[in-house]
Amino acid sequence: MNGAKNMDMSKAEEKYNHRAKAINSLLCVGLDADFEKLPERFKSLEFPQFEFNKWIIEETAEFAAAFKPNAAFYEARGEKGIKELKLTMDYLFKNYPDVFTIYDAKRADIGNTNNGYVAAIFDYMGFDAVTLHPYFGSEALKPFLDRTDKVSIILCRSSNPGSGELQDLKIDDKPLWQIVAEKTAKEWNKNSNCMLMVGATYPEEMKIARSIIGDMTLLVPGIGAQGGEVEAAVKAGLNSSNLGMIINSSRGIIFTENPKEEAKKLRDEINIYR
Amino acid sequence: MNGAKNMDMSKAEEKYNHRAKAINSLLCVGLDADFEKLPERFKSLEFPQFEFNKWIIEETAEFAAAFKPNAAFYEARGEKGIKELKLTMDYLFKNYPDVFTIYDAKRADIGNTNNGYVAAIFDYMGFDAVTLHPYFGSEALKPFLDRTDKVSIILCRSSNPGSGELQDLKIDDKPLWQIVAEKTAKEWNKNSNCMLMVGATYPEEMKIARSIIGDMTLLVPGIGAQGGEVEAAVKAGLNSSNLGMIINSSRGIIFTENPKEEAKKLRDEINIYR
Repeated sequence: MNGAKNMDMSKAEEKYNHRAKAINSLLCVGLDADFEKLPERFKSLEFPQFEFNKWIIEETAEFAAAFKPNAAFYEARGEKGIKELKLTMDYLFKNYPDVFTIYDAKRADIGNTNNGYVAAIFDYMGFDAVTLHPYFGSEALKPFLDRTDKVSIILCRSSNPGSGELQDLKIDDKPLWQIVAEKTAKEWNKNSNCMLMVGATYPEEMKIARSIIGDMTLLVPGIGAQGGEVEAAVKAGLNSSNLGMIINSSRGIIFTENPKEEAKKLRDEINIYR
Repeated sequence: MNGAKNMDMSKAEEKYNHRAKAINSLLCVGLDADFEKLPERFKSLEFPQFEFNKWIIEETAEFAAAFKPNAAFYEARGEKGIKELKLTMDYLFKNYPDVFTIYDAKRADIGNTNNGYVAAIFDYMGFDAVTLHPYFGSEALKPFLDRTDKVSIILCRSSNPGSGELQDLKIDDKPLWQIVAEKTAKEWNKNSNCMLMVGATYPEEMKIARSIIGDMTLLVPGIGAQGGEVEAAVKAGLNSSNLGMIINSSRGIIFTENPKEEAKKLRDEINIYR
């Protein structure tokens, strides 16, 4: 990458790129530690979700450029879950400070209220990035977008089968998700600290998104359990630096017999198509 | 109301209407217990947010048909905040079981993940209702919509000044927020358990929303600190039963010298225009 490109990148995005290059991986491991699905040996421990995460992190970190816990699985256990998420983050910072961390919380409120989420996610928990709904507009998202030291990942095309219900609605022949991609790239990214989420289940849309957003990094969920295919996603989503993607797998790695092997396998499969 | 209308209403909505009629009030008190803004006497207590909420609830409950904590202000304090929110909910159930409770969490993920939020919000915390982003579509929201014992409040027109950035985009001459109102009323409300959020700062839009959604209940934030006016909102939003609105004030009540007086004043002002 040339100097100009580096200058157009937030520190947090640089952190991701640095890690991705250092371990030659675009893989993100989704720490979706659903209590019901944890192996039995963890369930009786004092901090089952944390101990499970610690094990997954130790097994997979050498292949993981990023880790992404989803808020829902921790909130389901009330304050206990939130405590275990915080323990997980503290463990990550201490032992793997170079790994990029994303809170998949899918938040967005009005501006005054978003200050609370900023405090919770960036300052208390210490995440590098958070996923955000676009529906309230950029004026509402300002407390996130103003954080030049962090990354705002705007939800653009979600990976679920019914994502088109609103996202495919046409505004002057252009689907809503494309408007979100354009606004993110051209208006909301003033601080060069935005990324965009596009599901691996929609490779055609991802190709179009890439053409709209230049070299901006994509968060790509939906590989594996949700049916997204690696080859199609990677070919559609890479940027001009052969980077520009954070490819997540959760259930397809963490709830298998050998998470380490699955993480290595997916990292390698992604690299075949780079 | 006639029998047919009652049959088209969820138990949770009936709970709200029952309470609203019993105390002749459409007022919702927003429990946005931002730690920094708490009166000094609460800050040094073991459970400052809970003790503050308890005080606000005791002062205002006779005028409040509903209480609505916003998640951001609790999450900002990590597991401590979540514990204090749970204490608040337990206190409400024990002492004011008839009051309608809304978690203003503005959530929405894909279906599998939304199960975690359903467990957290409806089962662990015990809320009657939750606010939800529409962007991922109804297929994603199914775990919420399937809960016939609870209410899904779909975010339609948010109260912030910049809400039009996406919400006013035109689909065949119809703004996106109107499509959300139509979908909620005609497609997503199969279990008669949806409500719609429209900000008091947009009374013209509220009038149109009312014409689209029939007698469905509106959650109306934005009164007071955000600039929404009571008369315009009430005249625009009432349904044919002289109900159909949950009118929220947070900062305009809870962070004043006399929350009880402010709650009574707003309850009474709302009733002038009913």
